Amino acid sequence: MTITESKTTTGPAIRFSDVQAAAERLRGVAHRTPVLTSRTLDEMTGAQVYLKAETFQRIGAFKFRGAHNAISALEPEVRERGVVTNSSGNHAQAVALSAQLFSIPATIVMPTDAPPAKIAATRGYGAEIVFYDRYREDRAAIAEQVARDLGATLIPPYDHPLVMSGNGTTALELIEEVGDLDLLLVCLGGGGLLSGCATAAKALSPEIEIWGVEPEAGDDWAQSYARGERVRLAEVPRTIADGQQTEAPGVLTWPTVRPLVKGILTVSDNEIRDTMRFLFERMKLVTEPSGASALAALLAGKVDGRDKRVGVTITGGNIGVDGFCQIINQRDA
Amino acid sequence: MTITESKTTTGPAIRFSDVQAAAERLRGVAHRTPVLTSRTLDEMTGAQVYLKAETFQRIGAFKFRGAHNAISALEPEVRERGVVTNSSGNHAQAVALSAQLFSIPATIVMPTDAPPAKIAATRGYGAEIVFYDRYREDRAAIAEQVARDLGATLIPPYDHPLVMSGNGTTALELIEEVGDLDLLLVCLGGGGLLSGCATAAKALSPEIEIWGVEPEAGDDWAQSYARGERVRLAEVPRTIADGQQTEAPGVLTWPTVRPLVKGILTVSDNEIRDTMRFLFERMKLVTEPSGASALAALLAGKVDGRDKRVGVTITGGNIGVDGFCQIINQRDA
Repeated sequence: MTITESKTTTGPAIRFSDVQAAAERLRGVAHRTPVLTSRTLDEMTGAQVYLKAETFQRIGAFKFRGAHNAISALEPEVRERGVVTNSSGNHAQAVALSAQLFSIPATIVMPTDAPPAKIAATRGYGAEIVFYDRYREDRAAIAEQVARDLGATLIPPYDHPLVMSGNGTTALELIEEVGDLDLLLVCLGGGGLLSGCATAAKALSPEIEIWGVEPEAGDDWAQSYARGERVRLAEVPRTIADGQQTEAPGVLTWPTVRPLVKGILTVSDNEIRDTMRFLFERMKLVTEPSGASALAALLAGKVDGRDKRVGVTITGGNIGVDGFCQIINQRDA
Repeated sequence: MTITESKTTTGPAIRFSDVQAAAERLRGVAHRTPVLTSRTLDEMTGAQVYLKAETFQRIGAFKFRGAHNAISALEPEVRERGVVTNSSGNHAQAVALSAQLFSIPATIVMPTDAPPAKIAATRGYGAEIVFYDRYREDRAAIAEQVARDLGATLIPPYDHPLVMSGNGTTALELIEEVGDLDLLLVCLGGGGLLSGCATAAKALSPEIEIWGVEPEAGDDWAQSYARGERVRLAEVPRTIADGQQTEAPGVLTWPTVRPLVKGILTVSDNEIRDTMRFLFERMKLVTEPSGASALAALLAGKVDGRDKRVGVTITGGNIGVDGFCQIINQRDA
């Protein structure tokens, strides 16, 4: 069951110049992550594939780009009162690390079932954690209350122009490094990465065809794209891709993404598992489920990459060995 | 029980100029692998650590360097009759790929219990495989017989000057990229990597302190170093580090390594497991047990890296997901 959201903003929330400004703010702080290629991958897909490996970004995922861009842009006297966010994990670590770099307090509202490795890493950056029940409570409302109580600034995980433009530096760097692309496949949860990457990619490579990729169980973007308006899933999607369990496109990410993409692709949890295995065994990369989804769409043939130059985001690698082994072995029937 | 080997050659089998010549042969064919750093690793060890990630080498391990150097140096009319080798896996893939690049036949003598991922990858490069029982048969004798039968050239896994000098380009690249090092820790099986790396490192960075690192269960080098002569273990060592199950130092690697190293360190299988987990969870790298042994010595405090610039070889990542998960979970009591 789904609910159609009321129509909200109409135009894009960011422009290419915002992504360029973010790149300046992040220079020397965020890692310029490697672009990886594989002869095996090219043979399997018939494409020239360029993987932007945000697994090697600070905190192990692209989220540092958006969070640090947003926190860097705060007025110093506002920033020093601290920051708050709600997140399934990587954004939490991103906000925590950025706060640590600025020596300001960070409070993270996190689901009780967040992966232990993410909880430990967030605490490792010195942040306070407030837990909530992912399936019963409204994380956004809790985060807002915490921010009010502390006088701190809320840094949303995706639906914020500075977060979107910060994340867009992922595609900016990729295209700067490898040149024009025919296709770009981007992992899609709330749309914070896709909105920024699509904005940058279309500006740099106007002929590019851009696809967002989300898990089948959480196809809020695919449904929204089909209907031409934001659709909210009635339940939190159950998928191994814990970073892509959003119920609806963002109010700001949706109108930014919609005119720039060719469409939305979905992948099954088993297709994600196969891709995690491929990345592990053939490319020696550790990837969390959400981070493998865009490549899963290419490997599963959801889009035809033959004879094309294809950019793919590998968005994160924050998963413990035990969780990784468990997920790989629990295949869906 | 151990047996002392008869003394054989006395001087080093290679010189620095051999490593430099190998670097020329490998240019544009072998990957110049990345040097990885980690703030967490530096904090844990008090050192500045530079990991030379041969997991990203062609075939997923440093072995391509030695094998391709040796095969490249053959006279064309000899080379075209094909090559043969015996190997626990990575050298097999290295010879197979190099043969494929030269369009010549390759036959690999491989233990029946070699990891399935390595067998599949070797076949994937178009090589023929002849299996033998690691605990009962003499692999070297079988490989020699196969070579005679086919009129092909035997490419030994480590005890060959061209293999040693090819592998030495690993340390050559590392020091070229990061500058002088105080310490160099090298994974040690037959000594093919250590002999080449020590030769290059001492030439480039004369004050460097070099350690070989082998599994506790297969301490043939540590025993040899203590006695001042080659010692052969009575049994094939039982360790998770399948690439380091050699029974004795090589006839050529031993006299090359001995005068150049400070000593030999050993690590337990559990220390290797902990290091594989660290590399997975914090650095997002897949490493096979043998590949993690040198870093294990540093993380377990077998050598003091504090306030030093430490180079460490991460030698390979050829392990399937299932084997990785099994090894990590089967801790020794």
